[in-house]
Order: sequence, then C-alpha cells, then structure tokens
Amino acid sequence: MAISMYSATVPVFQHMLANLSHLLDKGEAHAQARKFDPAAFATYRLAPDMLPFARQILIACDAAKNGIARVSGVEAPKFDDTEQTFAELKARIQKTLDYLATVPAAAMDGTEDKDITFPVGRDATRTMKAQAYLLTWAMPNFYFHITTAYAIMRHAGVELGKADYLVGAKR
Amino acid sequence: MAISMYSATVPVFQHMLANLSHLLDKGEAHAQARKFDPAAFATYRLAPDMLPFARQILIACDAAKNGIARVSGVEAPKFDDTEQTFAELKARIQKTLDYLATVPAAAMDGTEDKDITFPVGRDATRTMKAQAYLLTWAMPNFYFHITTAYAIMRHAGVELGKADYLVGAKR
Repeated sequence: MAISMYSATVPVFQHMLANLSHLLDKGEAHAQARKFDPAAFATYRLAPDMLPFARQILIACDAAKNGIARVSGVEAPKFDDTEQTFAELKARIQKTLDYLATVPAAAMDGTEDKDITFPVGRDATRTMKAQAYLLTWAMPNFYFHITTAYAIMRHAGVELGKADYLVGAKR
Repeated sequence: MAISMYSATVPVFQHMLANLSHLLDKGEAHAQARKFDPAAFATYRLAPDMLPFARQILIACDAAKNGIARVSGVEAPKFDDTEQTFAELKARIQKTLDYLATVPAAAMDGTEDKDITFPVGRDATRTMKAQAYLLTWAMPNFYFHITTAYAIMRHAGVELGKADYLVGAKR
C-alpha cells in the first residue's frame, strides 16, 4: 500500500513507544535488583545541564502526541508532567498510545502541505508544512529523547542492547 | 505533494546528516580550544561497553547509505571505516550525502512492499517490507547513533543545544 502521512508517522511512534516501555521494564528490573532509589533514577542525567531521565520520557511522549495532534486536529489530552517512577512513566507512555489509537488515518492523510505553527522555546513560534514538521522536527525530537533515555540507563548500568531499542516490543 | 518513499526518507537523512556535520563543527571547535587529543575524542564513550564517538558517526552514515541502497537498488560506495578526526568524520558524512544525491526519487517510489533482507548481527539476516525496514529499522538506528554522538559530545563538555541537533544546518 502506498505510504501515507498516517502510515509514515503514527505506527512509527507507536512502535517506538512500545520499545521505550520495554526499555523501562529493563530499567525497572535493574533498579529493583540494585535497590536504587526511584527518585535518584528519575533525576539522573548525563551532564548537569541536560534534562534528567524522567523528563526525557515525558518529552518523547509529547513529541509524538503533540506532533500528531497538531497535524490531525484530533484533540489530545493534557498531562500534568508529574511522573517519576518507572510505573508512572510507563503509564504516561500507555496514555500516549491510547491517544494515538484514537487518531484515524483519514485525519492525517492528505495533510502534507498543511501549515503547522508550533511553539519553539518560550516566546517564539515556527511554521512548517506538516510533512516537514513531522519528519524533520517532531520525529527527530522524539528519537532524541528516547535515545537519551537509553543512554542515561546505559550510563546507570542497565543492561540494554541495540536489540532492545529496535525490536524490544512485539507488534 | 503526496508523501512518497523518497520524500519520507532521503531528504530526512540528508537534513539530519547536515545537522550532524554542524554538530561536528562545534565539537571540533571545542576540541581545538581545549587542545583535546583528537584520538581521545574519537575513542570517548559513555560506558565501557558502548561504541566510541567515531564509530557512532560511521554507523549513522551507514544506516542512511545502506538503508537507501537496499531499497533503491542504487549501488553505494563501500567505505574503509578508518575515519578518526573531525575532518575525516565530516568527509565521511559528505561522501554519504554525495551518494544520497545520486539516488533518483523514481528508484525509491513504489517500493513500499518490496522485501528487504539485511544482516542482523554477524550470522543472521532479517527480512522486512521496505517501508517498515526504513521507518522502523534504518531510521531509528540512524537517529540512535546521531543522538549518541550528541550525548558523547555533551558529556565531553561541548556546548550544544537541541537547536543544533534540530536545525543546525541551513537547507
């Protein structure tokens, strides 16, 4: 079947969010085995001026949710950004998956050239065509935060491999 | 214009490879200012059992090059994987961009359901449809190594921000 705005984005977000949840399962098992304080994990970072672990997960979810909501017009739930524990972070991923499952292909397909205006930083906005916005802004942002979460877990000693990132979840 | 196998992949790889080259410019300036041994940078890693900096760049390039070559059938150059310095790594990115520029849209479009068989590890192969292969294997792999290179540079003190990763390059 011909590639579409829906098939190029929503199933990709769903696949990688499921993989991210799988990565968190491994992180959680490691933290429990080593008796890590969950709060210490949530705030662990690679550099003092980089965002901590929990924020990486929240932003990855929002890159998918907000990206698809802006293009499809299907209203997305707002989250409070209070998640800290592995269980809470996995629930955030699930809520994001639940939202994505409500978006019909028809709301995405044909949107290639739709203008999308989105916030950049606190006081600015940027406008891009929907295809460029999803593929060269929302998607790279999404992967950035998943991979950084992976890197933080690896740095914390969680036994993860590329296979967990690429094919952790059964589809 | 309707999204296509070409437009969903080749320009995205090109955009992010240009951004990666921009990240390397910042890394190089930092290394020169701090008088880092280039060899120390090339072998710097986030964990003893993660791949070092230079390898992250090489694999990112190959994820794009091999992904597009396998789907388009346009023969790709083989590289010797000897790059270590920033100048050599940027030349590797440029060679990858030079290859991508030779791939016509017609060689990509309509390949959605083509079976792609590719190596997984040393002794196994896997077969996926071209669209799934590019969007849920080659592309995540590509972003993984770019983001890990970014994380290694941040961990080494290079002053980078998300804006460098997302929009470093003018297109």
